[in-house]
Amino acid sequence: MSFNTFGRLFRFTSFGESHGAAIGCVVDGCPPRIPLTAEEIQVHLDKRRPGQSRFTTQRQEPDAVKILSGVFADEATGRQVTTGTPIMLMIENIDQRSKDYSAIKDKYRPGHAGYTYDVKYGIHDYRGGGRASARETAVRVAAGSVARKVVPGLTVRGALVQMGPHQVDRSRWDWNEVERNPFFCPDPVQAKFFEDYLDGVRKSGSSIGAVIEVVAEGVPPGLGAPVYGKLDADLAAALMSINAVKGVEIGDGFASAELSGEDNADEMRMGNEGKPVFLSNHAGGILGGISTGQPIVARFAVKPTSSILTPRKTVDRYGNDTEIVTKGRHDPCVGIRAVPIGEAMVACVLADHYLMHRAQVGEGTAWPFEKR
Amino acid sequence: MSFNTFGRLFRFTSFGESHGAAIGCVVDGCPPRIPLTAEEIQVHLDKRRPGQSRFTTQRQEPDAVKILSGVFADEATGRQVTTGTPIMLMIENIDQRSKDYSAIKDKYRPGHAGYTYDVKYGIHDYRGGGRASARETAVRVAAGSVARKVVPGLTVRGALVQMGPHQVDRSRWDWNEVERNPFFCPDPVQAKFFEDYLDGVRKSGSSIGAVIEVVAEGVPPGLGAPVYGKLDADLAAALMSINAVKGVEIGDGFASAELSGEDNADEMRMGNEGKPVFLSNHAGGILGGISTGQPIVARFAVKPTSSILTPRKTVDRYGNDTEIVTKGRHDPCVGIRAVPIGEAMVACVLADHYLMHRAQVGEGTAWPFEKR
Amino acid sequence: MSFNTFGRLFRFTSFGESHGAAIGCVVDGCPPRIPLTAEEIQVHLDKRRPGQSRFTTQRQEPDAVKILSGVFADEATGRQVTTGTPIMLMIENIDQRSKDYSAIKDKYRPGHAGYTYDVKYGIHDYRGGGRASARETAVRVAAGSVARKVVPGLTVRGALVQMGPHQVDRSRWDWNEVERNPFFCPDPVQAKFFEDYLDGVRKSGSSIGAVIEVVAEGVPPGLGAPVYGKLDADLAAALMSINAVKGVEIGDGFASAELSGEDNADEMRMGNEGKPVFLSNHAGGILGGISTGQPIVARFAVKPTSSILTPRKTVDRYGNDTEIVTKGRHDPCVGIRAVPIGEAMVACVLADHYLMHRAQVGEGTAWPFEKR
Amino acid sequence: MSFNTFGRLFRFTSFGESHGAAIGCVVDGCPPRIPLTAEEIQVHLDKRRPGQSRFTTQRQEPDAVKILSGVFADEATGRQVTTGTPIMLMIENIDQRSKDYSAIKDKYRPGHAGYTYDVKYGIHDYRGGGRASARETAVRVAAGSVARKVVPGLTVRGALVQMGPHQVDRSRWDWNEVERNPFFCPDPVQAKFFEDYLDGVRKSGSSIGAVIEVVAEGVPPGLGAPVYGKLDADLAAALMSINAVKGVEIGDGFASAELSGEDNADEMRMGNEGKPVFLSNHAGGILGGISTGQPIVARFAVKPTSSILTPRKTVDRYGNDTEIVTKGRHDPCVGIRAVPIGEAMVACVLADHYLMHRAQVGEGTAWPFEKR
Repeated sequence: MSFNTFGRLFRFTSFGESHGAAIGCVVDGCPPRIPLTAEEIQVHLDKRRPGQSRFTTQRQEPDAVKILSGVFADEATGRQVTTGTPIMLMIENIDQRSKDYSAIKDKYRPGHAGYTYDVKYGIHDYRGGGRASARETAVRVAAGSVARKVVPGLTVRGALVQMGPHQVDRSRWDWNEVERNPFFCPDPVQAKFFEDYLDGVRKSGSSIGAVIEVVAEGVPPGLGAPVYGKLDADLAAALMSINAVKGVEIGDGFASAELSGEDNADEMRMGNEGKPVFLSNHAGGILGGISTGQPIVARFAVKPTSSILTPRKTVDRYGNDTEIVTKGRHDPCVGIRAVPIGEAMVACVLADHYLMHRAQVGEGTAWPFEKR
Repeated sequence: MSFNTFGRLFRFTSFGESHGAAIGCVVDGCPPRIPLTAEEIQVHLDKRRPGQSRFTTQRQEPDAVKILSGVFADEATGRQVTTGTPIMLMIENIDQRSKDYSAIKDKYRPGHAGYTYDVKYGIHDYRGGGRASARETAVRVAAGSVARKVVPGLTVRGALVQMGPHQVDRSRWDWNEVERNPFFCPDPVQAKFFEDYLDGVRKSGSSIGAVIEVVAEGVPPGLGAPVYGKLDADLAAALMSINAVKGVEIGDGFASAELSGEDNADEMRMGNEGKPVFLSNHAGGILGGISTGQPIVARFAVKPTSSILTPRKTVDRYGNDTEIVTKGRHDPCVGIRAVPIGEAMVACVLADHYLMHRAQVGEGTAWPFEKR
Repeated sequence: MSFNTFGRLFRFTSFGESHGAAIGCVVDGCPPRIPLTAEEIQVHLDKRRPGQSRFTTQRQEPDAVKILSGVFADEATGRQVTTGTPIMLMIENIDQRSKDYSAIKDKYRPGHAGYTYDVKYGIHDYRGGGRASARETAVRVAAGSVARKVVPGLTVRGALVQMGPHQVDRSRWDWNEVERNPFFCPDPVQAKFFEDYLDGVRKSGSSIGAVIEVVAEGVPPGLGAPVYGKLDADLAAALMSINAVKGVEIGDGFASAELSGEDNADEMRMGNEGKPVFLSNHAGGILGGISTGQPIVARFAVKPTSSILTPRKTVDRYGNDTEIVTKGRHDPCVGIRAVPIGEAMVACVLADHYLMHRAQVGEGTAWPFEKR
Repeated sequence: MSFNTFGRLFRFTSFGESHGAAIGCVVDGCPPRIPLTAEEIQVHLDKRRPGQSRFTTQRQEPDAVKILSGVFADEATGRQVTTGTPIMLMIENIDQRSKDYSAIKDKYRPGHAGYTYDVKYGIHDYRGGGRASARETAVRVAAGSVARKVVPGLTVRGALVQMGPHQVDRSRWDWNEVERNPFFCPDPVQAKFFEDYLDGVRKSGSSIGAVIEVVAEGVPPGLGAPVYGKLDADLAAALMSINAVKGVEIGDGFASAELSGEDNADEMRMGNEGKPVFLSNHAGGILGGISTGQPIVARFAVKPTSSILTPRKTVDRYGNDTEIVTKGRHDPCVGIRAVPIGEAMVACVLADHYLMHRAQVGEGTAWPFEKR
């Protein structure tokens, strides 16, 4: 997990800038003989794709993915399958209006990575953020759609649970609702409210933050590599690496600071299938860095984008005080499109740990204990 | 960053169980010719050491560290310095009362890693948690005390900012106060309150969670390796890998979800030293995964320990329903001792990124830009 | 250094098959602000390119490289420079005559990776070897041409020093001659002989092995990361990873087994520039895994290609005994085109270690000692 | 594979200097529930241990290994087994006669790593080579003895096949003979000759090189991670990382440069067990970086030690020309003790690849193909 490569055994190496010819990634370590088509990947990319409602940036990008290597037509079945060698996924950039950025070419946007990239590398790719652009997250979604197929029985779903100060009502949670509104919001009532709320934000040229929750079901117990490769540590890094994310929590997260030991304990009972079951899930499916078999629950906070119409004080590349206004096409709430990205990162972490667990311990887990 | 090795270039590999002969770590990649003595490391270990007040476990461990390799007496100065080769730090276990655990030998403690270790590895080291014990965190503190010396001018300090639902009052923040009370609390009024509060928790055989804040000052701008080795992503993994941590945030963290783009922007002005200065620090010192030069601010939530006197429902290793009570010597609030651990992990991440930055870009940063 | 990623800090991730749409790599960790154009890379690719003489395969591939990311036009100078972010290098495949392989579709070629890929992955990409094709080595040359620019003052040159049983006469060694004959042979007399010799091999439909020597000059002393990341260990892995390589040696190599301690010692004297000089170079520029500052000398043995016209006994994918003849377009001596590949791998290892050394020790080395 | 950590999934991190308190390593990633005792490890260490005949250094080191973590008494069987957590192996240094080195304290030994360590780190640990000492190789043997238990059915054996210019006669090869003479020589006639030969070298205060061959049997087909983590590339790095090694070859190695494609091809036929068998093993058990299932054959060349009685020209730390004679207790042929070290490194590479293969492809291989 370093630089532009994510993961250890299931890993992908990402490239590309907002206004270059293409973005993409090389997925390495994927098991062989897994059916995989560009169409399957496209389904997930389409969820992240900009320009689908008035609540996301109006940049028009088809985000059409091509598989340039690592697949082969299986003769027996006629299906296209992975070969175990690197899978190259490429997305060409289409709508690159570099002119949008000429006015702010030499200015740093407060709260944006342009400044730190320039301090570090001495390069200021003002065109849409260059490598720091949210455009890079498309390749995470592409890689994540491969990862989903690596862990048998895995389901990873995400939802927006807070926009600005407004949280969803969990008693109204409906996963089907998530696909019916432009916010990936599981609460139909709150989704309705968000339309008006975000219209207000958008029209004022402002932006707002959000909180996203990702739930992974079907995660086998035993995944995780203590003590510095804990499953939750890797999830935290994965989610925090997404643009604009400022906080990550697992299970009860920060609320667990307020709990007593009695309230926090997820009690256990033997279930009907001869396996232990938990009576609650404060832990969010992870104990000691290892999955329990319960759903894994992670949340992350997304700050508001720095691209706003209100002038902000800043400096330019030449050391002068100045002001900046960002007039490009931007998302009033970048948290919305972070939903499929968060899902993808969780899927990648789980695929990686699934392979690591299989390496060290072999297929399956050790339970039932008495039979060892 | 994987399994029992933390870090990439500045890294340490940890070993040892709660009730084995010793715990320790091998620090690798440390630059040569840095003065280093066991006494310096001991200072930090003593802060984490148990049994120093009635608010932490009464296990008596001197936690005396020995340096078994990687240092050499510099002839010119007579000082002991690092050699650039592996620094082995060892702490022998002294107070291992295994009998304390015999009553719960075959039972899983709800909320504890014993269950998941058994599911994963088929091994149940019931004696104090084995490898999953908080005892392992001593080696993090030892490694962190080496890391602090790698980054010139670096200061890393931590404080407990919340216990249960009770937060400190930031207007009373006093770093000197942190060393005057047994809670590492920066607010003298709240520290007084915590004495009574935690006594109540302790006497009832319960436990409580906490939130810790770590602030790193003197961090050079430019540290961080986008996009999957971002400084904040690594901090998130480092802090989440600490036992019992369930949430991590940088700067405004989850509160930034409620902010507008205007409020979240850290505006800039040219400072008197010819460098840009920021007018606020919502970002917590990191933009786009790269340090800005402002103080880095991270917080993490620690859940209450699962070792409590109130009986909880659970199962045993043989698939029977049962109840469990934990009578060993435990911390009513494990968050207290997490303060020096959090500091250590932050120091290790910064040392690692300091070396990575020097590798790619060389000494220093690129500013002032016009002079390049 | 694992799977399809080579290197630690300066590293590249390779993708693509012989008969897919494209091959390429993502170079990550490259320092910023290094001038880089596709033309510079093309110079090296053209040396490896097939079809340039009757002594290499007649497959016609322009091997035209494109830089898809990681460079930016420096405004001050107008030059294209690296940005410090991933450099994507892509080479499209043009001449893919898949029909050539239909006759051997289900048969394993003795001495070829087709069998082991099928055993491992259950996939048999019969079209020119798929991922195991020597075509993959083009991306190594591309990555190596970036690596050459990372280490200031570095020169890496290679030569063919043996074909079949015929060695060059080192007394006639002339680096300029290497570019004058189609064998990269530094001995003009032997080069003349190789023309007739290899014509004989070629016309008989056979193939022959070779030995390549690579010499790196301008390598700073101090590069290397003992004890498992030794410079020579990394060179050995790098060269052994090239297709068809079966042996690697540094300095005197296997001949040093026959030497006495007296003969093997590279004696030292203080040189005119106030630095130690060596009176010989049996060590090949490396002691204890660390560069001495002398030229680094590595050699590797390349086996003959398995693509020959003489029938060989083999089995097919369905478990039947059979015979195979390979009629495609192949190299009678694959060792020839291994020269630029070996150079590239040596350059990549040196760039990686240059960055690793800078990370741990900072710029430069510690000599002169008295001034420390 | 970097710095002082070897391996990816099965890996060990080594520490310690020749004249420090102890040497040792932390073995990480080992599968759980493998029976392991210190006695088993000691068997292999005793083979490498100095002072066992007049042909190795007279330093008296019991090399007694202790397991400080990572094992647990399995209750069901009463056996000590691995837990899946880090296994700490420690060997205390006993016989540290630092005075032996005082005469050469400030001088560099030609052909020894003392110079390059000083250039790199600015530290000159003159006492027996410090970290660069062959003493470090004891921990490789210890780690290797754990690795041997990871791959079911694996046997790794080594032999000295050449001393100085004198090779063994392979027609007399007898593995049992290897344990009967102090040279690990498989040829009883040549072993007899080596006694006189090496006595002559020893008495003259000189030293001599050697070639070692390691053969691994029972290696499952399919191990290896192309294209940069090839099994042979990793073996090359592993063997080249051993002190004093200057060359590595697989199968026919450098001799394959002289072969034609016809002679080099290992032809195949269906065997009686319904699996393909090879009619020869020029490849040394590896094709395309992946194991074929045949025995893996690797050889490496060991240079003569630089510790000799004949004066050699050198410089001192202060930049003066001088001469050096090494009077300590040294091995006339360090290649002898390299035999168990080579075995250990091969075992570690195979254990690592066994786990990596299991991660990506699962248990077993894909053959027979028709049944997939």
